[in-house]
Amino acid sequence: MTSTKTINLKSRPKGAPTLTDFDFTTSENPELQDGEVLLATKYVSVDPYLRGRMSDAPSYVPPFKLNEPISSGVIAEVLESKSTKFTKGDKVIGSLQWKETQVAKEEGLRKVDPDKAPLSAYLGIIGMTGLTAFLGLREIGKPKKGETLLVSGAAGAVGSVVGQIGKILGLRVVGIAGTDEKVDMLTSEFGFDEGINYNTTENMVEAIKSACPDGVDIYFDNVGGEISDAVLFNINKFSRTVICGAISVYNKTEKPKSLSVQTFLVKKSSLMQGFVVSDYEDKHAEGIQQLAEWLQQGKLHASETIKEGFENIPQAFLDLFEGKNKGKMVVKI
Amino acid sequence: MTSTKTINLKSRPKGAPTLTDFDFTTSENPELQDGEVLLATKYVSVDPYLRGRMSDAPSYVPPFKLNEPISSGVIAEVLESKSTKFTKGDKVIGSLQWKETQVAKEEGLRKVDPDKAPLSAYLGIIGMTGLTAFLGLREIGKPKKGETLLVSGAAGAVGSVVGQIGKILGLRVVGIAGTDEKVDMLTSEFGFDEGINYNTTENMVEAIKSACPDGVDIYFDNVGGEISDAVLFNINKFSRTVICGAISVYNKTEKPKSLSVQTFLVKKSSLMQGFVVSDYEDKHAEGIQQLAEWLQQGKLHASETIKEGFENIPQAFLDLFEGKNKGKMVVKI
Repeated sequence: MTSTKTINLKSRPKGAPTLTDFDFTTSENPELQDGEVLLATKYVSVDPYLRGRMSDAPSYVPPFKLNEPISSGVIAEVLESKSTKFTKGDKVIGSLQWKETQVAKEEGLRKVDPDKAPLSAYLGIIGMTGLTAFLGLREIGKPKKGETLLVSGAAGAVGSVVGQIGKILGLRVVGIAGTDEKVDMLTSEFGFDEGINYNTTENMVEAIKSACPDGVDIYFDNVGGEISDAVLFNINKFSRTVICGAISVYNKTEKPKSLSVQTFLVKKSSLMQGFVVSDYEDKHAEGIQQLAEWLQQGKLHASETIKEGFENIPQAFLDLFEGKNKGKMVVKI
Repeated sequence: MTSTKTINLKSRPKGAPTLTDFDFTTSENPELQDGEVLLATKYVSVDPYLRGRMSDAPSYVPPFKLNEPISSGVIAEVLESKSTKFTKGDKVIGSLQWKETQVAKEEGLRKVDPDKAPLSAYLGIIGMTGLTAFLGLREIGKPKKGETLLVSGAAGAVGSVVGQIGKILGLRVVGIAGTDEKVDMLTSEFGFDEGINYNTTENMVEAIKSACPDGVDIYFDNVGGEISDAVLFNINKFSRTVICGAISVYNKTEKPKSLSVQTFLVKKSSLMQGFVVSDYEDKHAEGIQQLAEWLQQGKLHASETIKEGFENIPQAFLDLFEGKNKGKMVVKI
């Protein structure tokens, strides 16, 4: 029997989550059964969508239970195996609990190859993050060469990949981010054509118009709120908005209000659609293959913010809402 | 030379239009040239979308010019012809000016057959109104038998047809309207399964939930505003919202705010798309054929509110925003 540190959901946040919503306990791992492995956590993914699971409201993933472990995408190493699929030393990925070690069933685990890509990349650019960017842009954005793509949360995990894929596909790509440093990264590191700092821009409607002189054909939206309101004034006829997230409103205690989108959509015969990567499972393998190919060809650049230490997982998660990450945020254990 | 009464746009409405925004003048019809016809107006269509054209703002149709005639869908009779396509006595349809008589070029006119359907039906159920209902529901709503369709502005020109087509296609159909009389019509005349009177319902979220126990798969939205906010709490995973109009906000002087749709859309992988019938011209002929067939089979029922008299066209238009019409509003000259 092994004991392990565990991070539980202690209370459901009202508004912005705080460290007191998390609880560290020590628990015992049960004895290994056939078909199970004992895992040591290596990398933990922290993602904005986990905020939704901390509330007791129906969503596309069920809510976390109070006083039970939180889970997310995790890379782990097999310490012991009673599975025929995995042997000691294998690196695996799965939706796993926030524990230093844990017993897991072999179903739902997938082997990853540390020689093909850094382990953390499997949580990011060649994992759910990359797939979200690739499939959201392709399946809803339906990009056509020469069109203009606008990305909010552009320096974040998904946004930075969306912009890079946009450039590969021959689009004009403009990104919105919240610091000058991030805006610089958009053009210097990720190859965006232009960046807008929403924190220092007085008139976002005009700033978008100036950066997108031919209007916006595809808006990949990670933030919602006032930034997305400003985009509405710049959408083109037949434009597509991929609603991937709305981090600016996840922590609001009241249902947020913003400009009524209906009149804009009807004037422009425009589409808006919510995107959740899990709806497109039949396209995941193909997507990963494409992303890995672009990564190997040097066309895609993985951007990561890596925090260290199991005890820092909750803080890393909170930092997402302050925009402290550049690219994908992971915690190395 | 003939002279004719003409209705011009005198001023751009601030908020709700009033009679003083319209101006009656008398003008001379020019002499007929080759390829032209002299027309006597028989029926004039008044439609909510004309409100948008009265403002000086870009939309899917260009704005009306000040002190020039307003135009809309019109059925007219040919009085004189220098066209090889039309002869005296022919009934035609086209986008024509609000004049008792007018000279028009043959292009853009189409002959209609008064023996096949009442003339006014060509402006309504087998015209743009019916096409809007049919193509909006089919192309964006993508109905599947057994699904639940919710329609706002359900007793209106488009809404009443959408609901009837929904029933033909095997959907559960619920409509929202503003008086008990209209709600009665929904079930007794148009075959809706259930109706909701938004003016007498305190909690629209709960009323929709109760009328749509399996949730809303397709929302055909003619109104926008608070009614559409309430619908968001009831949309199903993969639901589709057809944004056909937003009559509740057309007369607002400030850009209206409502619930942020983004979080709802992403939670439900839901789609919202603006629909304008003119974007689907390649499907108009097929649509008219289908609508005419259903009409002849008695599966569709044309509902009209017919006002009389050229001088009453402006008031008929204003009545639309008070919900005084049931079904399609036309003015008979």
